[in-house]
Amino acid sequence: MRMYDIISNKRDGKELTKEEIAYFVKNLVSGEIPDYQASALLMAIYLNGMSEHETIDLTIEMEHSGDVLDLSSLPNTVDKHSTGGVGDKVSLIVVPIASALGGTVAKMSGRGLGHTGGTVDKLESIPGFRTELYPYEFMDNARKHGIAIVGQTGNMAPADKKIYAIRDVTATVGCIPLIISSVMSKKLAAGSQNIVLDVTVGTGAFLRDLNSAKRMAHGMVAVGKAAGRDISAVLTDMNEPLGSAIGNSLEIIEAVEVLNNRGPEDLRYVALTIASEMVSLFSGKSHDECFENCKEVLANGKALDKFKEMVIAQGGDVSYIENTSKFRKADYCYEVKSTESGYISGFDTEGIGITSVILGAGREKKGDSIDFDAGIKMIKKLGDYVIPGDTIALLFTNDKSKLDVAKKKFESSITYSDEYTDERKLVYDIIR
Amino acid sequence: MRMYDIISNKRDGKELTKEEIAYFVKNLVSGEIPDYQASALLMAIYLNGMSEHETIDLTIEMEHSGDVLDLSSLPNTVDKHSTGGVGDKVSLIVVPIASALGGTVAKMSGRGLGHTGGTVDKLESIPGFRTELYPYEFMDNARKHGIAIVGQTGNMAPADKKIYAIRDVTATVGCIPLIISSVMSKKLAAGSQNIVLDVTVGTGAFLRDLNSAKRMAHGMVAVGKAAGRDISAVLTDMNEPLGSAIGNSLEIIEAVEVLNNRGPEDLRYVALTIASEMVSLFSGKSHDECFENCKEVLANGKALDKFKEMVIAQGGDVSYIENTSKFRKADYCYEVKSTESGYISGFDTEGIGITSVILGAGREKKGDSIDFDAGIKMIKKLGDYVIPGDTIALLFTNDKSKLDVAKKKFESSITYSDEYTDERKLVYDIIR
Repeated sequence: MRMYDIISNKRDGKELTKEEIAYFVKNLVSGEIPDYQASALLMAIYLNGMSEHETIDLTIEMEHSGDVLDLSSLPNTVDKHSTGGVGDKVSLIVVPIASALGGTVAKMSGRGLGHTGGTVDKLESIPGFRTELYPYEFMDNARKHGIAIVGQTGNMAPADKKIYAIRDVTATVGCIPLIISSVMSKKLAAGSQNIVLDVTVGTGAFLRDLNSAKRMAHGMVAVGKAAGRDISAVLTDMNEPLGSAIGNSLEIIEAVEVLNNRGPEDLRYVALTIASEMVSLFSGKSHDECFENCKEVLANGKALDKFKEMVIAQGGDVSYIENTSKFRKADYCYEVKSTESGYISGFDTEGIGITSVILGAGREKKGDSIDFDAGIKMIKKLGDYVIPGDTIALLFTNDKSKLDVAKKKFESSITYSDEYTDERKLVYDIIR
Repeated sequence: MRMYDIISNKRDGKELTKEEIAYFVKNLVSGEIPDYQASALLMAIYLNGMSEHETIDLTIEMEHSGDVLDLSSLPNTVDKHSTGGVGDKVSLIVVPIASALGGTVAKMSGRGLGHTGGTVDKLESIPGFRTELYPYEFMDNARKHGIAIVGQTGNMAPADKKIYAIRDVTATVGCIPLIISSVMSKKLAAGSQNIVLDVTVGTGAFLRDLNSAKRMAHGMVAVGKAAGRDISAVLTDMNEPLGSAIGNSLEIIEAVEVLNNRGPEDLRYVALTIASEMVSLFSGKSHDECFENCKEVLANGKALDKFKEMVIAQGGDVSYIENTSKFRKADYCYEVKSTESGYISGFDTEGIGITSVILGAGREKKGDSIDFDAGIKMIKKLGDYVIPGDTIALLFTNDKSKLDVAKKKFESSITYSDEYTDERKLVYDIIR
């Protein structure tokens, strides 16, 4: 078998065989296949697509390209993944809910990159919280507490790392079969039996139209099932930031609000929907019944207790969770005010995410340091009526020099309209 | 400007601007653009194509990526290029004809690779012949004798070298705009005002259908004109080897036959057509008038004299040209005999070219050594009627161990038929 022939087959629109895909993944990871051949294949895949078969074969091959976590000794293992959003602190809420209802969530999360935040960064804004645990600690915590969230460690899905690094610089990121294989190879290697995917759609999501998102969700679910997992995908809206907080400690505070049975209604509803799906998968109970159970553990404080249990187990100062006013406030706060009268009819949610990066809350490139206090608090939401002078959002930063650029970026991310538009739908569909 | 955006523009089917193409070529040659980005772009070009504008811009940028030969002090400079064939010794005939009729042919030729031979290898089978001249010698010979053929030297079109090396291993060779830019960038850099392209079509050519070949010929002519050159393309048949000899000294002997006003009719006709086009371009006379002039210099020995003049000027032993029986014969000769009765209805000409490589006449990969004596002599041609036992061809080699494989390859390259098929057309079209 030769890489040259694999490239030319895909170039000519043929379906790659399981053997060809295995050859590509193995020899890419071993360094036998040079990057320039991989990038030619990836561009051919971008332009000619991949069938469901090919996507499944590629994903499972990538899953097994490195370490695979064995969680089989733990009960009701359940994982959750979001395709990315702005103000998306759903994991911080659904993980303790699912754990409080008998699930074991031994979760590896990512860091923020570009306009989307990352759960690991957010957790690190809690003083002392360790997102790097030794493997035995991670397993012990999962076993003892049914909850643990860490950064990605070890040599998991190295094929994905290599392929993603090439896609990132060759304009082949935005390709649904490749996104599916990237996300799912890592999720499968992370070892949970049950997986719920939050597939976001809208101006702050990777995919902006519902049809593409549905296609991707169906593909991911098919791959998960082919790998023998119980899986579903929830299609959620990302046409404005979820909840009102964007930024690391700001999002922890808002998540704790929801765990205290308060917090913004949109965030609460999306989190309850995803948590119900997680619980439904491992318990076998109906989504609706689980929805009620999830509401209960928010109301009776059991989900918050689980969250605090995790914070303590991972070395975090739990007094910050008990009293979120202890979180340091950013030195500078700027009020973005409306200059127009009308309904807020649209947000460039990605633009708002970029604003938060400018303020210091995120990273433009890997390795950049971040400011835990920086971020945005949305005061107005889609469909709100404003008049000149109304405060739309608060921008927080410790670097005053960033405010001007951030303000301009934020202001250019808002569209006004004279007419009131329909309320947004928060959850479009659940694909099982 | 970023390479990433250039890749994504082509990926999305956009036409690249002159500036984007210049950025790509300059930064590829300087090493700023890594191979994996270049290969992604080349695959996107392969699949989404390039307009005539883009092809012209790319070619001219590649032409100027390195040294450009200045032949402006020489009269009637004329060059010729073939897109490759088997038994294609046309250059050896047309160069002395055009020179004998007042043209200056200061030509850089290639070496053989894969199933096609190279003029430089063929000339090197003449004892003493130097295909590497110092630049001043090359120019001196061109000025004094109006004829010089050397291998490609110096740093000409380095962008082509780099791009071709990437295409070669990423399955992006067979892309018409990229072939055009590769061929034409070198031809333009080689400096002749007049250029005749021999675009071959058929089972021994790179392109097997006439429409693709015409499209490529039109593209090449358009590029040449855009660069201010006088240019035409002759579409010639390559459904069987041209003439009867394949192999280095064997082809020199056959070319000398034609220069002696003898030799196979097909080779003679194709060579006269191409030579006429060359002379027509620099003299301004009609093709038909030039055809007569070309026939004359074959008949009166002036073309042969020019060839001998070049051989002497480049250090070759001219006694081999005066008496071609001096060329060493291969140690082994094998007769391929027909096993069937019928008309020879088809040759896999590429397969015959590969047979000659197996016998030692060519190279599988760059740098392989070659056997000047090895090759094939075709005894039967397309349309000939044979009965079992008739000799179809003679295989020559100095390595007896190769005969079995070569014989099998050759035999599998012949198709017989009960019905006589139309005679082949030698020249399909001339595009000016």
